Amino acid sequence: MAGPNSNDPPQGSLFARLRDANAEAWQDYTEHPFLMALADGNLSEPAFRHYLIQDFIFLRHFARAYGLAAYKAENLDEIRTASRGLQAIVDVEIGLHESYCTDWGVDSATLEAAPEHNATLAYTRYVLERGMAGDLLDLYVALAPCIIGYGEIGARLLANNRTKLEGNRFAAWIEMYGGEDYQTISADAVRYLDQVGRRRGADSRFPALCRIFAEATRLEAAFWQMGLDAGE
Amino acid sequence: MAGPNSNDPPQGSLFARLRDANAEAWQDYTEHPFLMALADGNLSEPAFRHYLIQDFIFLRHFARAYGLAAYKAENLDEIRTASRGLQAIVDVEIGLHESYCTDWGVDSATLEAAPEHNATLAYTRYVLERGMAGDLLDLYVALAPCIIGYGEIGARLLANNRTKLEGNRFAAWIEMYGGEDYQTISADAVRYLDQVGRRRGADSRFPALCRIFAEATRLEAAFWQMGLDAGE
Amino acid sequence: MAGPNSNDPPQGSLFARLRDANAEAWQDYTEHPFLMALADGNLSEPAFRHYLIQDFIFLRHFARAYGLAAYKAENLDEIRTASRGLQAIVDVEIGLHESYCTDWGVDSATLEAAPEHNATLAYTRYVLERGMAGDLLDLYVALAPCIIGYGEIGARLLANNRTKLEGNRFAAWIEMYGGEDYQTISADAVRYLDQVGRRRGADSRFPALCRIFAEATRLEAAFWQMGLDAGE
Amino acid sequence: MAGPNSNDPPQGSLFARLRDANAEAWQDYTEHPFLMALADGNLSEPAFRHYLIQDFIFLRHFARAYGLAAYKAENLDEIRTASRGLQAIVDVEIGLHESYCTDWGVDSATLEAAPEHNATLAYTRYVLERGMAGDLLDLYVALAPCIIGYGEIGARLLANNRTKLEGNRFAAWIEMYGGEDYQTISADAVRYLDQVGRRRGADSRFPALCRIFAEATRLEAAFWQMGLDAGE
Repeated sequence: MAGPNSNDPPQGSLFARLRDANAEAWQDYTEHPFLMALADGNLSEPAFRHYLIQDFIFLRHFARAYGLAAYKAENLDEIRTASRGLQAIVDVEIGLHESYCTDWGVDSATLEAAPEHNATLAYTRYVLERGMAGDLLDLYVALAPCIIGYGEIGARLLANNRTKLEGNRFAAWIEMYGGEDYQTISADAVRYLDQVGRRRGADSRFPALCRIFAEATRLEAAFWQMGLDAGE
Repeated sequence: MAGPNSNDPPQGSLFARLRDANAEAWQDYTEHPFLMALADGNLSEPAFRHYLIQDFIFLRHFARAYGLAAYKAENLDEIRTASRGLQAIVDVEIGLHESYCTDWGVDSATLEAAPEHNATLAYTRYVLERGMAGDLLDLYVALAPCIIGYGEIGARLLANNRTKLEGNRFAAWIEMYGGEDYQTISADAVRYLDQVGRRRGADSRFPALCRIFAEATRLEAAFWQMGLDAGE
Repeated sequence: MAGPNSNDPPQGSLFARLRDANAEAWQDYTEHPFLMALADGNLSEPAFRHYLIQDFIFLRHFARAYGLAAYKAENLDEIRTASRGLQAIVDVEIGLHESYCTDWGVDSATLEAAPEHNATLAYTRYVLERGMAGDLLDLYVALAPCIIGYGEIGARLLANNRTKLEGNRFAAWIEMYGGEDYQTISADAVRYLDQVGRRRGADSRFPALCRIFAEATRLEAAFWQMGLDAGE
Repeated sequence: MAGPNSNDPPQGSLFARLRDANAEAWQDYTEHPFLMALADGNLSEPAFRHYLIQDFIFLRHFARAYGLAAYKAENLDEIRTASRGLQAIVDVEIGLHESYCTDWGVDSATLEAAPEHNATLAYTRYVLERGMAGDLLDLYVALAPCIIGYGEIGARLLANNRTKLEGNRFAAWIEMYGGEDYQTISADAVRYLDQVGRRRGADSRFPALCRIFAEATRLEAAFWQMGLDAGE
């Protein structure tokens, strides 16, 4: 894929350090065959539909994680940031997701009735459990591979000249996460993670934070794999 | 105070049953001398200011309780309701509170620097701890004396012919909680508590729910008392 | 397998009702091919070793779940029951497990270094997350398929005339869970679940409890399957 | 009171640093008039009885805090330490407390029926809520003023030549906390806090940990004051 670009998080950021300390797992996740197939348009439709449905379930638990962040917050600013994150999911993202699913022929009834796959369950419950057992920093580190990782994936796919946008039915997905709106969300999340980390001694907790980041990254890769497996 | 009026929650509602099972504690709270002094305009300004400052701290933990409700939610509707509650506090109520405090000569710096009184700490942490140890129903029952109680207090003070509005510097407070906007919030909370209760067996858990309601009601009365004591 | 026997939980017990409402999932779990292969001695050693190692990781999170039960307890009896459960795991079961692993050639270093399989992660975090989001009853319902299920499995394997004990290297496992000590633990857990359920309105919460029981049962079956898959 | 003695925690320990950073609050707590009256035998019996009863309620929530520590633990050693703490309370301390209460004419029925005082509620729920919102280090810091503080108080009262043991009906209390058994518990807690702190970046989190320690210390002093007030 493309090398570092202007969207790359600043070198010294906590996110960049966590990512670089888990380079192999990060590559497995961000350059997963699911994404390569998405980029060249060769991903099977059932694989993408399965991913969309599970991602809808994922979002619900992700929203709960932002609720947890509000509970764990120690001042008004932290509560407000968590509240905005929760609101963005339930008032914007879930709606977008539903309409996107409709475009792909997945109606609300199908979304509601879909059983949760083990890959979804493992990932979401890991994040919620780590976030509950640890403090706000542990929680945001567990959320980082998703929020910030999707930004990195979107930007790199968009910048990659092997990515086919024309005639690619997955182009909208790539353009959404590679687009300016999501890139801003992702860059904000990088900065916010640093802020939360400074207050809570991220430097001296780095090995423990690394383990959480590594596990969440691994579970993200398994989430792509679940999609891919469903398409076979 | 005034007897039952049109704002009274329906007789069979979970809230009405909890309130009626704790009639004495409820009366201690909703007819507390602090409120009587507020209604006739004789409350001392230092008492009211102290109350306002502590209520500001209270709101912050109350917001966290709605974050917790989002975490505890079991479906999208429950997450959305909790998210709206959280948002209402951090985007609306806290702002209103700050501007109201300014009117009373309490600036932001004073609000930020104010130490938390034990009455505030006891009440807020009790709600958060009960909500965490129990389920979503336990949490909403712990929140009910405040949300719904303020509605009942506002409506009754407004309807009471012993209440003096003209020339009463506390009239704005009474009109806010007695006014249509807050009455709608309060009535919605009554209905929502029934909905959460139906799903989680409120009837057969009534004695345990009663204990939570009673304790939260007692802690609300102690909160008024804290205000009153500060004015002496 | 053998039909109902004297070890069967009383018909009206909450556990029996949850099990019977999820008959198919329960059968998938308690009559899983892993167990059939264990009973006739044909399970592959790598499969069993993989199971042992993951079960060791499982026990650690299970111990945490009993810690959570102590936190969620509402009176001294409930705290004591949770404390005894926690103590039994960390002071007895984990030690037994380690020595059992040694017999199977799995040393402590291997146990410590073993990465957690997704099936282990999904199951344990689901239990911890349900137990945290819900109340003590939700937590014990999530734990029931394991604690009580192992008792039922042990008793049925021991009573089944197709089970081969002589010359079966897995006989010790069957005799442990089918034996009197574990049967007492299991029967106590059935009674205790009823007690916790009575206090918290289990009857009117039955559909929600059923969903938790069904999911935990399904995740237990997936845990056997993980062992089986490792043996191939 | 007596100056530093051999029981003093090592200068560089996290506990010593937290205590020294909150010197005034620590003195208010550890040299509270309640303790001075206990040391010279002049404490009123009703004051001591009230303290004993509330301390019994306190212990129950303290046990829950150790259950929470087991949930929050990240490895087997941490789970075991939490389990031993929980077990010590429910199997030893609570029993001792009950028999001690009996000596003071407070029977089990009185203990069970006693309503929880706001000072008890505020302190216990603060510890549980901080421990839940933060990580294991936040939890143990919130617990430190009690566990380690009682050790320091016991040792200092015993070493103080103004303390009267002969004919002092409170001598048993002083001798228990000043005695070797409790001094070992307290010294172990100092060391363990360092261990938990090293793993979780205590140094760079010092200001935030200080706030928790200060609040818990203040709430301990309020607990003595509650006893004193009850004796008037």
